[in-house]
Amino acid sequence: MDENIDKLLKHKVSWLANCGPDDDIAISSRIRLARNLEGMPFPVAAKIEILNQARGAIELAVRNTACFKKDPVVFELEKLSELDKQVLLERRLVSEEFIEDGQGAGIAVSDDEIFGIMINEEDHMRIQAMKPGCQLSEVWDAVNAVDDKLSEELPFAFDSNLGYLTSCPTNVGTGMRASVMLHLPGLVLAEQVDAVIHGVSKLGLAVRGIFGEGSNNLGNLFQVSNQSTLGESEAQIIERLDAVIKQVISHEKNARHSMLEKKQNFLLDHVGRAYGVLRHAYRISSDETLNSLSALRLGVDMGMFSSVDIQTVNELFVIIQPAHLQKYAKRELDSEERDTYRASLVRDRLRSIDNNKH
Amino acid sequence: MDENIDKLLKHKVSWLANCGPDDDIAISSRIRLARNLEGMPFPVAAKIEILNQARGAIELAVRNTACFKKDPVVFELEKLSELDKQVLLERRLVSEEFIEDGQGAGIAVSDDEIFGIMINEEDHMRIQAMKPGCQLSEVWDAVNAVDDKLSEELPFAFDSNLGYLTSCPTNVGTGMRASVMLHLPGLVLAEQVDAVIHGVSKLGLAVRGIFGEGSNNLGNLFQVSNQSTLGESEAQIIERLDAVIKQVISHEKNARHSMLEKKQNFLLDHVGRAYGVLRHAYRISSDETLNSLSALRLGVDMGMFSSVDIQTVNELFVIIQPAHLQKYAKRELDSEERDTYRASLVRDRLRSIDNNKH
Repeated sequence: MDENIDKLLKHKVSWLANCGPDDDIAISSRIRLARNLEGMPFPVAAKIEILNQARGAIELAVRNTACFKKDPVVFELEKLSELDKQVLLERRLVSEEFIEDGQGAGIAVSDDEIFGIMINEEDHMRIQAMKPGCQLSEVWDAVNAVDDKLSEELPFAFDSNLGYLTSCPTNVGTGMRASVMLHLPGLVLAEQVDAVIHGVSKLGLAVRGIFGEGSNNLGNLFQVSNQSTLGESEAQIIERLDAVIKQVISHEKNARHSMLEKKQNFLLDHVGRAYGVLRHAYRISSDETLNSLSALRLGVDMGMFSSVDIQTVNELFVIIQPAHLQKYAKRELDSEERDTYRASLVRDRLRSIDNNKH
Repeated sequence: MDENIDKLLKHKVSWLANCGPDDDIAISSRIRLARNLEGMPFPVAAKIEILNQARGAIELAVRNTACFKKDPVVFELEKLSELDKQVLLERRLVSEEFIEDGQGAGIAVSDDEIFGIMINEEDHMRIQAMKPGCQLSEVWDAVNAVDDKLSEELPFAFDSNLGYLTSCPTNVGTGMRASVMLHLPGLVLAEQVDAVIHGVSKLGLAVRGIFGEGSNNLGNLFQVSNQSTLGESEAQIIERLDAVIKQVISHEKNARHSMLEKKQNFLLDHVGRAYGVLRHAYRISSDETLNSLSALRLGVDMGMFSSVDIQTVNELFVIIQPAHLQKYAKRELDSEERDTYRASLVRDRLRSIDNNKH
């Protein structure tokens, strides 16, 4: 057990706060920048000594530049347990590929989890910033500042024609992947989400479920991101992405309003039953929880529940996942035990939510 | 709309009170006596003038003898709307066959619904008494007293060898059908109910679902009754039936205790989810309501809910049925409207139930 992981667990996840623009539908905005150190082989081709050397240099630069503005929390991946790695994944601080192999890899995060750097993932650095709501420009400013600070200390691999050089050619250029996490229960219930995804894809953007490949519509959470990193400036990419996301948000709002007008009882029933299950079940799977939380979040956004802390609902999306449950329980839990523990956790957290229309 | 029906609807159903012996499992006890008037053809063979004559004589005797101890409420079946007839059926005051054809038929009930007489059903009279819990002897005393009083005024068709003569040979003798309504969710959940039903049937007793043929285990409510009416005295029949029912009750208790010991979370989850649905759904079918009420009743009996009025739960089994809903709504409701109205009624009634372990 790494005590720094326990420290993270004690904080609220700040990018899940409900204080960003369009936070009724946009949960969070994230930008990741791929950066590599000049004159060093990419991690995939590097020996362990080189990886360690790169990691050491990056950690030092993070501390020296105070690029997160606060002291960073730093982890060396090989020292983390499987469970702790999963916690970082569930908090969206690292990628799935990253935690599969740990030799020479590391993570530096700000303790509010707004900033994070994966060290020696596919590239020497993946610098990320994450904020609540739909605010890609602000996130860009934040991550750009970290990038600038680090570039004062570290020599970045950069080509004046191509831009930033990356391990995988799909990231060359800006090295930027910007994404917004959207909650789209209205479009899913109205069976319009496939059409919207199709339309967004045709504009050269990617849409996928949040919980990994094949997770489909789990929790009705979708991530919309740019596909190309070349031929446009960061600002242009963000502007284009932002415009599309605003459109998706407007489609989602229309779907909700139309359902509230034409199928009010269906909607109330959908939300009410989900709340009933979350509030009173004693065993609940991860999938059922995510989908029920989605319905509850919809109900909260639509004013069906008073005195509600939407951040509680947002946070539940993260903390009902297996690694978080086991950290809270302070022991390993098998699948059945997790279902019981998850139900108990959800009941406890929701007890404070008053239900003003029931 | 018959105003006497409205009067019934305003009262709590007294045989659904939770004040009888073994009322955690036995909801109510009922005895019906088949009686016919000497010298008159059975209703199936009688012309309308004869039916009217029989009905008149019986109504008069009911009033003259004050056999219900209070003024009876009397209905002539042909004057009742289909909806009002269904209300009587849902309150278990009449049989399904009885309300199919109404010419010359009638009903007399005490306003607490403990006593009722179907006039010109298969026999000239089916005298019934119903009380909460498992108390067949007390019900026998009650119905026997009514029978005695009426026999002072009315000449009953009786043969010194055969006993009471009835339209259908299966009722000849005592003319008595005694039954107890049992709530057996434990046996159903433990998948032992079929074995118990089989065992009871082998003892010459009948077990069937409450909500008509093919209703199976709806609400986990079962009616156990005597099959034979000949060759034993009423007391003997009741004693035998009562002994078997006590055994079924003990099986049900064992099933519950064993489940609470070995599968506590399964049980809590089953009850909790049912409560969640009843408390928060906005559309709910009759079948789902009955099955969820069964789980809730189990939870109440097992102490999962405090400050609970079990009579509320018992009554819901009756009043969520279609005719009651439409009487409360004061208009015809189609199936979809009933599901919405039912959900609203259930939410309202359960709002007062505090849930002390959630």
